Amino acid sequence: MSTDINKTIKGFSKLSKEQKIEWVTQNFAQHPKEALELLKSYWHNELSTQKLHDDFIENAITNYYLPFAVAPNFRINNKMYCIPLAIEESSVVAAAAKAANYWNVRGGFKTKVISTTKVGQVHFIWEGIDKNKFHSFFEKLIPEFHRRTELITKNMRQRGGGILNIELRDKTDLIPNYFQIHALFDTKDSMGANFINSVLEEFAKTLIDNLAEQTWETNEKQVQIVMSILSNYTPECLVRAEVSCPVKDLNEDNLSPDEFAQKFQRAVRIAEVEPHRAVTHNKGIMNGIDSVVIATGNDFRAIEACAHAYASRNGKYSSLTHCEVSDGIFTFYIEIPLALGTVGGITSLHPMVKFANEILGNPNAEELMQITAVTGLAQNFSALRSLTTTGIQKGHMKMHLLNILNQLGANEEEKADIVNYFKDKIVSYQSAVEAYNKIKRK
Amino acid sequence: MSTDINKTIKGFSKLSKEQKIEWVTQNFAQHPKEALELLKSYWHNELSTQKLHDDFIENAITNYYLPFAVAPNFRINNKMYCIPLAIEESSVVAAAAKAANYWNVRGGFKTKVISTTKVGQVHFIWEGIDKNKFHSFFEKLIPEFHRRTELITKNMRQRGGGILNIELRDKTDLIPNYFQIHALFDTKDSMGANFINSVLEEFAKTLIDNLAEQTWETNEKQVQIVMSILSNYTPECLVRAEVSCPVKDLNEDNLSPDEFAQKFQRAVRIAEVEPHRAVTHNKGIMNGIDSVVIATGNDFRAIEACAHAYASRNGKYSSLTHCEVSDGIFTFYIEIPLALGTVGGITSLHPMVKFANEILGNPNAEELMQITAVTGLAQNFSALRSLTTTGIQKGHMKMHLLNILNQLGANEEEKADIVNYFKDKIVSYQSAVEAYNKIKRK
Repeated sequence: MSTDINKTIKGFSKLSKEQKIEWVTQNFAQHPKEALELLKSYWHNELSTQKLHDDFIENAITNYYLPFAVAPNFRINNKMYCIPLAIEESSVVAAAAKAANYWNVRGGFKTKVISTTKVGQVHFIWEGIDKNKFHSFFEKLIPEFHRRTELITKNMRQRGGGILNIELRDKTDLIPNYFQIHALFDTKDSMGANFINSVLEEFAKTLIDNLAEQTWETNEKQVQIVMSILSNYTPECLVRAEVSCPVKDLNEDNLSPDEFAQKFQRAVRIAEVEPHRAVTHNKGIMNGIDSVVIATGNDFRAIEACAHAYASRNGKYSSLTHCEVSDGIFTFYIEIPLALGTVGGITSLHPMVKFANEILGNPNAEELMQITAVTGLAQNFSALRSLTTTGIQKGHMKMHLLNILNQLGANEEEKADIVNYFKDKIVSYQSAVEAYNKIKRK
Repeated sequence: MSTDINKTIKGFSKLSKEQKIEWVTQNFAQHPKEALELLKSYWHNELSTQKLHDDFIENAITNYYLPFAVAPNFRINNKMYCIPLAIEESSVVAAAAKAANYWNVRGGFKTKVISTTKVGQVHFIWEGIDKNKFHSFFEKLIPEFHRRTELITKNMRQRGGGILNIELRDKTDLIPNYFQIHALFDTKDSMGANFINSVLEEFAKTLIDNLAEQTWETNEKQVQIVMSILSNYTPECLVRAEVSCPVKDLNEDNLSPDEFAQKFQRAVRIAEVEPHRAVTHNKGIMNGIDSVVIATGNDFRAIEACAHAYASRNGKYSSLTHCEVSDGIFTFYIEIPLALGTVGGITSLHPMVKFANEILGNPNAEELMQITAVTGLAQNFSALRSLTTTGIQKGHMKMHLLNILNQLGANEEEKADIVNYFKDKIVSYQSAVEAYNKIKRK
């Protein structure tokens, strides 16, 4: 098959932003002129602000808008928060706000940080035979690992963090001759990825250098460093959030408090034992969590990967939230690892991230962990409450209906009429189109 | 503990956008006037465009900018693509572009959609004893499930999709009296969430109505519907992408092709057997995948939840990519479930999503699955290549250095000097600050 030569390019990253846009639109857009206008219309009016956003990543040509919203009335440990959420999915913010109101008058959310330990590893191959000798050597090398990373850790130590533990792990049962330096870190209010990676690369060099100085056999004196990198799996960097109230206060329109509590608990139980449901259940939790993670400038891929791996830690993928009903008290809680930061990365650069942190009262990392866990729990509460009472489609489709109508080009009056028409009907794309066409013909 | 009464509000969602901003900034911002200016500065200049974005979710007050970039030179099944990426993390786009160039001259990416089946479930409790009777009843009811959902499925059937299978699943070993309607769907080019959920809610009603008509015992004639909802766990909605070339073509600066192939394969093998590494490894894959998922208006929480649950399907969290070296041929591939859509949701509404799809040649859902899987594989290739050769910090910190310098307020000349200074040095936040202060003093 032949390929169009114009559709490949050398040195693209070296072009100016304008040149990049020119090449992309000329070669890949159906209407290059309109595409160019579109891209520019999404730039910030202030050149310096736009420059800042362009510098975050490579080959940036414009901005992708994620809606930025707020959910007020979150009572967390008896303090009121208005939580910033950046998310594209309709009904996520509405669900968060609804849960906030619901629990605001039922004692609010209670939270606790269990630990903030982070993890990094140097993966390497050592082909020696005498493992005991190697272990002894490693133990004696530990002060040297600290000493050689002093410059990198200086600032972090001043802030009360640093290296917590360094250990040699024998993984030769998994892969022949495979060992790890498994290290634990406290990175205080920073996410700490660059800090941990820099320390690990120095660990690797320290190991190589000191091993070479031993009067051992040649194959014992060398290691092959496969890679030195932080682990995004931080099961100990854990936070808990919960809500709790007397069962009798769980009043719903068409369900007794006892029935609601039982049905709700059953829905959570299903997510605990059935992976097909657990994935969707946790996905809903992450709707809330990622919205805060993005708004506050954290890395949602890291948070996602860790949360879902944690959900599978017992060998079967399971729910991140749990529900207990005993002695007339309903308790619903989440325990989730959240390695978040409030300094470093884009946190002090992105103006909307700065704003998000400002309205949260400029929290430290531990406070942000708690706020984020609460948002996930709130999201899950609203989703389960809808699912077990009216069904999810009623609320969801009402939100989605407006999107369909916008797509069809309905005006404000038509929209109001159609939303009213669907008050007691099932919305499908098809039925929305039909309702719109009927109104249009009038 | 007392709470500030001004920090709670009733009827917030009913306020106008301006009123919402007024309340948030007055009560939560340190400098309300500046905050208000900031929020407004992030609005789109065209009122109608901004209105469109405001309507996506509830309580939207402004836009969160994610950098929107492109990575050219992706050869996929011998066709050239320029891939749109929306992401905040530095070095993701650079890594994608680097892998695209690398494989463009080594045969490109080869892809294949394995299946596109999606899943939905009605979870319910049936307290009868005679399970065989219930199963027979259910089997006879299947045509009725189809008939009663005809109106909802009409449009989808016209497009060649619809309900593929409906089955009763006995889950009483997990929870007493717990059964499921487990249904499979083909939703063609739409993600299909609303379609599936609407069908499932009708299934639930159909079950209730028909059971009530049986001449059975009272407890056999009723079910408690716990919930009706799609599953985001779609392990069958699977796509494969691979790269392959003779080992001798894997030339690196300081490593022989054989050494590189061995080291690379070892790094993948570690991610296959060691969960701490697997999580980070897959997180890197998702850096690429989510960037495309967001740019094309899909739901990244759904994609994340499914991918990571899939990675844990064998009871131990493991790598999504695999590497083989045999007969002098190096092969690196990914198999990942990706339930993506190119119609519905915000895909035809969000102007930047429309642009992203336009430069991809307006792909259908299957093509988008392939493009997205390729981006994940490309990302992983570059990450492993850096990790196993120069180490990740060298490239990563160079990108990050500019962010630190922006934060310190360095001008263009100072930035160039400092980037040059760090060419052969380890970057840490501390060392960057020191270098900057040194230059400033001059």
